[in-house]
Formats: sequence, structure tokens, C-alpha cells
Amino acid sequence: MNEFMKAACELSAENLRTNSGGPFGAVVVKDGKIIGRGRNHVLENNDPTAHGEVMAIRDACKNTGSYDLSGCELYTSAYPCPMCMSATVWANIKKIYYGNTRKDAETIGFRDDFIYELMGRLSADEEDGGGIEIEQLDHEETIKVFEAFERKQDKTIY
Amino acid sequence: MNEFMKAACELSAENLRTNSGGPFGAVVVKDGKIIGRGRNHVLENNDPTAHGEVMAIRDACKNTGSYDLSGCELYTSAYPCPMCMSATVWANIKKIYYGNTRKDAETIGFRDDFIYELMGRLSADEEDGGGIEIEQLDHEETIKVFEAFERKQDKTIY
Repeated sequence: MNEFMKAACELSAENLRTNSGGPFGAVVVKDGKIIGRGRNHVLENNDPTAHGEVMAIRDACKNTGSYDLSGCELYTSAYPCPMCMSATVWANIKKIYYGNTRKDAETIGFRDDFIYELMGRLSADEEDGGGIEIEQLDHEETIKVFEAFERKQDKTIY
Repeated sequence: MNEFMKAACELSAENLRTNSGGPFGAVVVKDGKIIGRGRNHVLENNDPTAHGEVMAIRDACKNTGSYDLSGCELYTSAYPCPMCMSATVWANIKKIYYGNTRKDAETIGFRDDFIYELMGRLSADEEDGGGIEIEQLDHEETIKVFEAFERKQDKTIY
């Protein structure tokens, strides 16, 4: 078994004992070394965003002092949900290894596949939010902040 | 202007001054009251997951002591990126109000639309990862943890 997937898998298995959250673990690897570790903490932390991959990315960023994980790889015990997949993109990670599939996650009761289907519809600008209503408000006011950001000189785009 | 969108918009505008991150703010509302506030802290916190909506959801969860925000609404100064949209689903929020569009976000330099396109392809099981490689490893080992989770009696599905 790949050593980094083994580490991610062991983190996922810790949650069988701890009940911190679902059975999901992940590590971030740079230059052949683990620089961030995470396991799902949704229940323990009362944080719906505390998935294994998000925890591993946040840990790697804390350890490196950067929001940019370019050149790193993510090993995760299960296929990232859309939240974690997007977090990976925002972190500039370009290689992901996963173990279990999103169908496997659905089989044990998680909504990953439902959210991917929603993402597919939103990506195609379809209006079916799958039970979630999404409505625009006050664009003429909110756009003023974006316009000010565009004019701003001292800005960083990430 | 809607009072809650005004609060989200004011949070987004704070980042023009603070440089904590991009110009994005959000609030979580329950029964007509703001219970969570967030603005983008990607740069200040060195955390690529610290988007305005994620910060607002985490704040609301901290304030309520729950990972479940059923019955709450999200007001965000800009259309949620796929990470934040998925975080909203995981938090059981079913009503989202937004101001700026994802095209507006692209115009000022952010990758929201690129990530929505990636989500569309992944949702359709297409192999084009838009520069991100996604590879399966060691499924025969990782699946054992899911099987143990299925057999486990004292578990919570969120």
C-alpha cells in the first residue's frame, strides 16, 4: 500500500474510535514528506466544513505559513466532495490521490453524490437547486465593492 | 437595501481596507436575526478555505453549538463558489441570497467560474480535470474503513 495513502487511511480509521466525524482522512505531501494531516471533525468541532481534506489543507497551510500549496499533492481516503475538491483548487494543489469513490460514500450514507449533481446543474446555469433556493438581491449596491476592489492598487489575487 | 445583504456587503467592504482577503462578506440569519458573520480571511489567516461564507457558517456553528444550521438563511455579497455552495449544503441551509454574480467575480480576477466548470465535468464523470490529476489508489484497503463504519452501531450521519 502506498505510504501516504496508508497515512490517510489510518487517519480515517481513527474516526471509527473517536466519533469525531465521518470515516475520512487526508494528508498533504510535499517533496515526499507529509506536511499536513487531517481527519473529519464535523461532529467534534461542530463545524460542517471540517472535512478531512479541509483539515489537512488548513494544517499544511498553518505549518508552511502560506495559503498557497503549489507543488503539493493530496492523498485522501475517499474521493473529495465538491467542497473539498474546490478547496484543493483554491490551495493550488494539482494532484489528488483518493481511495474510496463517491458512490462508496453514498453507500454509507453521505451526500457527496447529491452535491456533485447539484454542482453539475449550477455549472450549467440550470435553475433546479435540488431543494436549495438561490436568489439575487441588491446587485446595484454589492457591485460597488467589486468596482472599488478593481481600482485598488495594493491587492493580492489568490 | 435588504438589511442582511447590507450587513454582508459591509463585511465585504471591510476587506478593501484590511487586505484580509478578497472583497467577500456573508451573514447567517435565523428567525430574523444575524447569528454568524464572516468576511474573507484567506490572506490574513493563510487559509485558502477561509472564504466569507465558510467563515460565517463556522461563526454561526460556534455561536449555536451545532454543525446543523437547518432553518437558517445565508446572505452573501457574491454568488458562493463551489466550496462555499457545498459548505452551505453540508450545513443544511436551504435559502441563499447573493449580490454579485460569479461572472462579476471572474471580472475582478477570481476563479469561481473555472471551478464551476470543473465541477460540471466531474459531476458528469468526465476525465478532464482542467489541469488537476485525480487518481485512485489502494481501494481494497481504504474500503475496509467504510465497511467497518457501516457495521458500527454508535454513529451519526450528518
